Amino acid sequence: MATVAHFDKLLRPKRVAVIGVSLTNPFHPANIIFNKSFYGSGSMAYPVNPRGGELEKQPVFRSVKELPEQADLAVIAVKAPLVPGVIRECGEVGIQAAIIISGGFAEVGGEGIALQEELVKECRRYNICMIGPNCIGVYHPPYIDSFFLPPERTVIPKRGAISVISQSGAFLVDQILTRFYEEDLGVRTAVSIGNRAVLDEVDMLEHFAQDTGTRAICLYLEGAGTRPRELYELCSEVSSRKPIIAFVGGKSVEGQRAALSHTAALAANSRLISSALAQCGVIEAADELELASLAKIFDFYHHRPLLEGNIAVVSSSGGHGVVAADLCEGTGLNLVPFTEGEQGTLRELCTDSISSIASLKNPLDLTGSASDLDFERTLDYVLSLPKVEGAIVLALPYTPMITSFIGTRLGHVVRRHDKPVAAYIPSLAKYEMVLEGFELNGIPVVHTIQESVQMMQALYRLGLAVQRSGRKRKNHAVRNNQAAK
Amino acid sequence: MATVAHFDKLLRPKRVAVIGVSLTNPFHPANIIFNKSFYGSGSMAYPVNPRGGELEKQPVFRSVKELPEQADLAVIAVKAPLVPGVIRECGEVGIQAAIIISGGFAEVGGEGIALQEELVKECRRYNICMIGPNCIGVYHPPYIDSFFLPPERTVIPKRGAISVISQSGAFLVDQILTRFYEEDLGVRTAVSIGNRAVLDEVDMLEHFAQDTGTRAICLYLEGAGTRPRELYELCSEVSSRKPIIAFVGGKSVEGQRAALSHTAALAANSRLISSALAQCGVIEAADELELASLAKIFDFYHHRPLLEGNIAVVSSSGGHGVVAADLCEGTGLNLVPFTEGEQGTLRELCTDSISSIASLKNPLDLTGSASDLDFERTLDYVLSLPKVEGAIVLALPYTPMITSFIGTRLGHVVRRHDKPVAAYIPSLAKYEMVLEGFELNGIPVVHTIQESVQMMQALYRLGLAVQRSGRKRKNHAVRNNQAAK
Repeated sequence: MATVAHFDKLLRPKRVAVIGVSLTNPFHPANIIFNKSFYGSGSMAYPVNPRGGELEKQPVFRSVKELPEQADLAVIAVKAPLVPGVIRECGEVGIQAAIIISGGFAEVGGEGIALQEELVKECRRYNICMIGPNCIGVYHPPYIDSFFLPPERTVIPKRGAISVISQSGAFLVDQILTRFYEEDLGVRTAVSIGNRAVLDEVDMLEHFAQDTGTRAICLYLEGAGTRPRELYELCSEVSSRKPIIAFVGGKSVEGQRAALSHTAALAANSRLISSALAQCGVIEAADELELASLAKIFDFYHHRPLLEGNIAVVSSSGGHGVVAADLCEGTGLNLVPFTEGEQGTLRELCTDSISSIASLKNPLDLTGSASDLDFERTLDYVLSLPKVEGAIVLALPYTPMITSFIGTRLGHVVRRHDKPVAAYIPSLAKYEMVLEGFELNGIPVVHTIQESVQMMQALYRLGLAVQRSGRKRKNHAVRNNQAAK
Repeated sequence: MATVAHFDKLLRPKRVAVIGVSLTNPFHPANIIFNKSFYGSGSMAYPVNPRGGELEKQPVFRSVKELPEQADLAVIAVKAPLVPGVIRECGEVGIQAAIIISGGFAEVGGEGIALQEELVKECRRYNICMIGPNCIGVYHPPYIDSFFLPPERTVIPKRGAISVISQSGAFLVDQILTRFYEEDLGVRTAVSIGNRAVLDEVDMLEHFAQDTGTRAICLYLEGAGTRPRELYELCSEVSSRKPIIAFVGGKSVEGQRAALSHTAALAANSRLISSALAQCGVIEAADELELASLAKIFDFYHHRPLLEGNIAVVSSSGGHGVVAADLCEGTGLNLVPFTEGEQGTLRELCTDSISSIASLKNPLDLTGSASDLDFERTLDYVLSLPKVEGAIVLALPYTPMITSFIGTRLGHVVRRHDKPVAAYIPSLAKYEMVLEGFELNGIPVVHTIQESVQMMQALYRLGLAVQRSGRKRKNHAVRNNQAAK
């Protein structure tokens, strides 16, 4: 049902009607959305309220029928029982895209379910492509931002190539706006699908799969979704071209019950979701923090080097190396052993201050006396070994011989070998200059050892997914050939 | 061997000899330690180097024998082969406490092992209580800070009641100095035990168990320790009085190998460590972040309310509630169901703007339209129910009706009921005022939903430990009585 033209009106509207603005409460969701659109976006916004009047010195229109020009998109935040009528009016004037912020539908049960059915009927009748209800809608700068949060209370991540589909609005704000901002990750489009009464995660995924501006897709789902079979088939097809990262809520019994009250999500077979997603090549995040780290590694390494899992860990702390080694266990990552000869070469490459105390097995412990040069030479050597596919650098900017040049120097090494490297740096603001040295030179940085391991594991997991999809396509071709004979 | 007087000299020295200062390299560990002691501590510091000369306009002494007064503590950072001789000199002048920073002992194998044996022999001969070698030593402000990191590269957490024993120096810096600073948690004493050739984790734990200024103890171990049986017995005895939190590295095969190169830690039965620790009432952290969250909950709730696990989750986001419910599964925490009647009462307590849209099952979803008052009234009611022992508050400061007063208001509620509450607030700097409203009013705050669940689980786990230890003591008494008959 949803066409390219529909998505264009939804994500790149030129004229937006914001229906339900309050004449008295400046914090009403519709008012915040109107202000954001009117003052902050590249689109024209029209406020609508049946009582008319004035808002921020602009005339308030009594209905979408009174607007001076036709709106591309209606953003609706009126009380639930009024929504079907408002949608009907939108349909009558030819508006084909809508975002319904209002709650009080299927998620509250009872009459809410009937109300949602009525709403869906109206949308279908007028061929309206609708996001919601019970959501915060769409964030696609500079065209539309229906997240009804006062802008001074949130942050704006930079524009980038990661698109996000989320069943929870607040989870989206915390994980995408906030965490992406903190991690300096770029967002292309973020959509809160809420009760997904018309457009659901499958429609949105289909759109982002075709969207050339989207490099990786993040998905927050509660339960298996409304159309699990279509979702899995689509993921299988897309994930070998564009990484899909998922975080799934409502997998426990308690969580399922909560998900039902939240977005009326069904819980059937939710235990099987993880294995189904993995089968389709989707990289599932085990916890909140992993979501952003996975997005970051795929943003940095979108040419996607496929790892078989053989990595090196270069650290200036033995303890950090031990923790990283523990974390690699069971992930598919393998700390490649170095021969006596290789260890000897590494020792010769070390500067005098560490050559007698460094441990040059894998993980390398260059000790707290290591300098930039020690990191540079040892990383260069281990990446030059054909058996090493990538590396984790655990760099501690508080050891005395590390300078703010280290990121630039290691960035040159990484470019020379074209193998992926992820770095851990503790999270203090004062290390920002060191961190930027890494990231501006192509090495993604995280603030826990665990995330650095998860990043390398993600490249390994994606490698598996691409391999599997290659095999599937081959088998499919063989079957087709046999059938043709 | 280590007496109260020994620990007094080690942790509260009045005169410190820093042996091994360089006359040319201001970044030498000994120089950094000397500068920190001389300018930054309440102790007197004397620089020592066999060549004599001047450092920072102070005379450099050729040996501890030349000092104008006897040192309480020697901090030694000379090359490994010179260390036994230096210790002998310390012993000859009656110095009874030493920190050996130098690496190049058991952790490098071969001659290093013999060197460490020689060193231990000298320490025993002169009854010297020694930390190290291969460590960053002791941080016990304002007396001693032998962490040889330029102060401008690290942070100073506030002084507090948590003491730390770590086998890794850098892990200690990242997890304790940095994370505690970021989480506004107070440190009493932090000790990096390195190769633990004389004083080990058992000695230090014994000390902190008796130390009235220590409220909770954090432990970073690699492998099972040198004296696992003594460690477990001591933990059993201490953990019911003072929470002990542990993070164990070197539990995987790769991690064991790395731990051996790091601090010569033995790996025997390391798989069993977790169950042994749990048996002794030690709360083991599953990941890096959990360590600080556990320390924080025990710091806030040191009167230690014992939970049977029945909690409520109060949230302004359905998605956050779903994730919290998932995380509770398998932790011993139970989201207490609310009856229809209780849900009705809760609905009456809600303000008009949310009463028709809030979901008042457990987890409560007050929605993004919730105000401070909604949080205050619903939390007050759920904590008033005898079946609810504590709560998690998932508060999102970006929703329009939340003000910076929310922490103060909820703090009053918590004090009224005297039940533990942990809060989640996203980590942006601009939410600092909201966060402080919580923490200054007695509610600890974390930045992931997972940590908020881990915090409540920690109180449940400690409850189990105390119960078990009570049973043990009772059984012990019964056995003793029977034996006496």
